Amino acid sequence: MSTTKNMAYKASIKYGYADKKAPLARRLSRIEGQVRGVSKMVDGDKYCIDILTQITAAQSALDRVALELLAEHTRHCMDNEQVGQDKNQKVDELVKAVGRMI
Amino acid sequence: MSTTKNMAYKASIKYGYADKKAPLARRLSRIEGQVRGVSKMVDGDKYCIDILTQITAAQSALDRVALELLAEHTRHCMDNEQVGQDKNQKVDELVKAVGRMI
Amino acid sequence: MSTTKNMAYKASIKYGYADKKAPLARRLSRIEGQVRGVSKMVDGDKYCIDILTQITAAQSALDRVALELLAEHTRHCMDNEQVGQDKNQKVDELVKAVGRMI
Amino acid sequence: MSTTKNMAYKASIKYGYADKKAPLARRLSRIEGQVRGVSKMVDGDKYCIDILTQITAAQSALDRVALELLAEHTRHCMDNEQVGQDKNQKVDELVKAVGRMI
Repeated sequence: MSTTKNMAYKASIKYGYADKKAPLARRLSRIEGQVRGVSKMVDGDKYCIDILTQITAAQSALDRVALELLAEHTRHCMDNEQVGQDKNQKVDELVKAVGRMI
Repeated sequence: MSTTKNMAYKASIKYGYADKKAPLARRLSRIEGQVRGVSKMVDGDKYCIDILTQITAAQSALDRVALELLAEHTRHCMDNEQVGQDKNQKVDELVKAVGRMI
Repeated sequence: MSTTKNMAYKASIKYGYADKKAPLARRLSRIEGQVRGVSKMVDGDKYCIDILTQITAAQSALDRVALELLAEHTRHCMDNEQVGQDKNQKVDELVKAVGRMI
Repeated sequence: MSTTKNMAYKASIKYGYADKKAPLARRLSRIEGQVRGVSKMVDGDKYCIDILTQITAAQSALDRVALELLAEHTRHCMDNEQVGQDKNQKVDELVKAVGRMI
């Protein structure tokens, strides 16, 4: 196995979202723009409730990114045989992450 | 394999929370009491903000039960070899469930 | 003014949800039933994801009751002239209640 | 009253967060940085759960900004005499905004 292929293999073992990096980057850059939009609304004295709506939109978009990462991570954990303590640890950190999200 | 053993085996395949039924039942019965407590507060003209606090407490308790079920379910899905489409379906329904929670 | 009328008057001053007590009681009793339904699902070995869906339904219903109480409380606070520190305190406890909800 | 002063006066009547614009801008710019940080983590193949933690931190910061705006808005609505239908509309849009947040 070539070194490059080997590294790619290791990466695919380690991170479930490897194949989704480009679309995730695009979505995150859009969310950055949404937050910048909130700044502009505050600066431009926009109506409070409209700013709250824009904040909620950014948060929903972040939720969707988080769910995507969670899906890839879970799929990945199921793909790789997780044994004993390691598996319990994976489940614990996953559920803790969900606990912080809700 | 005896029928009883077979049934137990099937149950352990199908439901991750089997070992936690008694504590889950106790927690849910406590939450039922919390909701009944909210009713009593409304009936007793308690202060609005105090009722909201009590509602939030019931919701946090429900969140914890949901996280427990999620943990058992995920652990269980990782335990059992999930193959191909079935695994993807498991991940999808799990992530959709989390999506409804957040 | 009779004592009874006076008490009713005071209650209506103090609590915004006074007119909604009957429908709120009905909704809370339904939510209590939903939580009891979750208990039955756990007891009946129902599928984990279906139980999570039922928990989410109970939480949405609690959210709606909380929003209703919040609406009545806010309407009520606006109705009554809140002055100075008292008004700030009202806003603080209202926003803290929302903070616990999100 | 000069036109400029008059406009400033109108703005202060209309938007409750006028006095908090500078700190809000700073917080939003920090959140923008947090979202950019998430992008860098994805680009740098960081561990999924750590990225989720960072996303959750950005969302908590957005929650706090939203609560601050909500507080100023509510305080403001209580300050200004809201009459009849206008007051009901204010309460409705406020509660709808909270509903989107939770």
